Amino acid sequence: MGNLLIVKIGGNVIDDERLFQSFIHSFASIPGAKILVHGGGKAATELSTKLGIETKQVNGRRITDEATLNVVTMTYAGLINKKIVAALQSETVNAVGLTGIDGAAFKGVKRPVKEIDYGYVADLISENVNTSFLKLLLDNNIVPIIAPITANEYGQLLNVNADTVASTLAESLAPYYNTQLVFCFEMRGVLRNINDPDSIISEINFPIAEKLKQEGVITKGMAPKVENALEAISKGVEKVVIGSAIELEHLALNKKGYGTIISN
Amino acid sequence: MGNLLIVKIGGNVIDDERLFQSFIHSFASIPGAKILVHGGGKAATELSTKLGIETKQVNGRRITDEATLNVVTMTYAGLINKKIVAALQSETVNAVGLTGIDGAAFKGVKRPVKEIDYGYVADLISENVNTSFLKLLLDNNIVPIIAPITANEYGQLLNVNADTVASTLAESLAPYYNTQLVFCFEMRGVLRNINDPDSIISEINFPIAEKLKQEGVITKGMAPKVENALEAISKGVEKVVIGSAIELEHLALNKKGYGTIISN
Repeated sequence: MGNLLIVKIGGNVIDDERLFQSFIHSFASIPGAKILVHGGGKAATELSTKLGIETKQVNGRRITDEATLNVVTMTYAGLINKKIVAALQSETVNAVGLTGIDGAAFKGVKRPVKEIDYGYVADLISENVNTSFLKLLLDNNIVPIIAPITANEYGQLLNVNADTVASTLAESLAPYYNTQLVFCFEMRGVLRNINDPDSIISEINFPIAEKLKQEGVITKGMAPKVENALEAISKGVEKVVIGSAIELEHLALNKKGYGTIISN
Repeated sequence: MGNLLIVKIGGNVIDDERLFQSFIHSFASIPGAKILVHGGGKAATELSTKLGIETKQVNGRRITDEATLNVVTMTYAGLINKKIVAALQSETVNAVGLTGIDGAAFKGVKRPVKEIDYGYVADLISENVNTSFLKLLLDNNIVPIIAPITANEYGQLLNVNADTVASTLAESLAPYYNTQLVFCFEMRGVLRNINDPDSIISEINFPIAEKLKQEGVITKGMAPKVENALEAISKGVEKVVIGSAIELEHLALNKKGYGTIISN
């Protein structure tokens, strides 16, 4: 079984030109099968502001109305995705930009309305991932670059969380590859002390996570990331690493002292 | 050698919701290997207007500056491309949206500055088409949906004419497939009398084209389309059909009385 690396980056990489270029170079230099999932960044908010579209929130959660859906489709699938693909192609990586609808890579289900109607937002089911399409690309040395946009079975476009895309793809592809997932974020790893950027917790597994939660070390902001990572592990993903994009090459190699490794 | 159908649609199909739905249904129903190339439509102009970006023209030719390039990347590769892919996926066509940079499908060269600097606009060379990537998709029943955006070798995004994309792809793929190219436009074919929509010229070849030009039947507006079609034929494309999107199924079958067939 071959190896597969899935990397997720967010706005902090996309919006910082120097960090972006450095990341592209690092990602290009990593050999083997790989997938990049990217989030949004400032472009969507900037375009919304220019167009006079208000960002709607309910209980602190963003709501995707039709105007916002158009904006995220344009910026995520258009501007940002193509910028990344062009940058990687110029580093001779055979990148192909995709959303969930392209090749039915991952179809979504509109999030059911309970207390809150999130609007045009998708939940994902790992059974809805088209693994044969993704394998066709990966096994031909093509590198999928994935924007967090999908559609339901009726062709309705939907916005989707990029972390969820990355972990769902990792879970679905785990039966075919030794799959490692790297979540890049602002910190160098999960921190024991939020005020000390060097207090990186090098390893987390299920019992350690339980202990860290009891001690209050895993804070409210960090909890969903760790939960997400542990769920991916429980569904067959070999390793999840949380760390900084600037250290991607070390994270991908699980080098000691870089990032937080979450495993069984 | 298998058959390949390449269809090009423009703004008149994209901007008319009823025509769009009817076209999607027709395109979905045509069996075999196929590619769809789409142009822009009103979305780019509307977004430019809302953002206060002026459309620059020199000698009646549109100039693509950086702001306009961002707008066309967002609308062509983002909004329109994904709308088409989602619509086809919901008709169970395994569509994948691409620009020229994705899989290096067709790389461009920035148009050299002579009398006019067209800005971020690409010329295409058929040798720069990645036929093995397109064949990989086609031979796996995947239908490429292509937006007229590409980049040069340095990763600079560039705008490109959709007619040129369609004919360049057809020429490059002609050695591998019996390739037929259908240009959809506002009329039911090339007209003998511009004021009579039924005066369709059923067939054009090189000597007939020469005669029609001398007689003044092929007008200034029509000349580039016919020239483009004849060039494709001279480069190995089997047939080019010019006609209306509403009659696509008949055009694809070369049914008598539908569209203008351009052949050797």
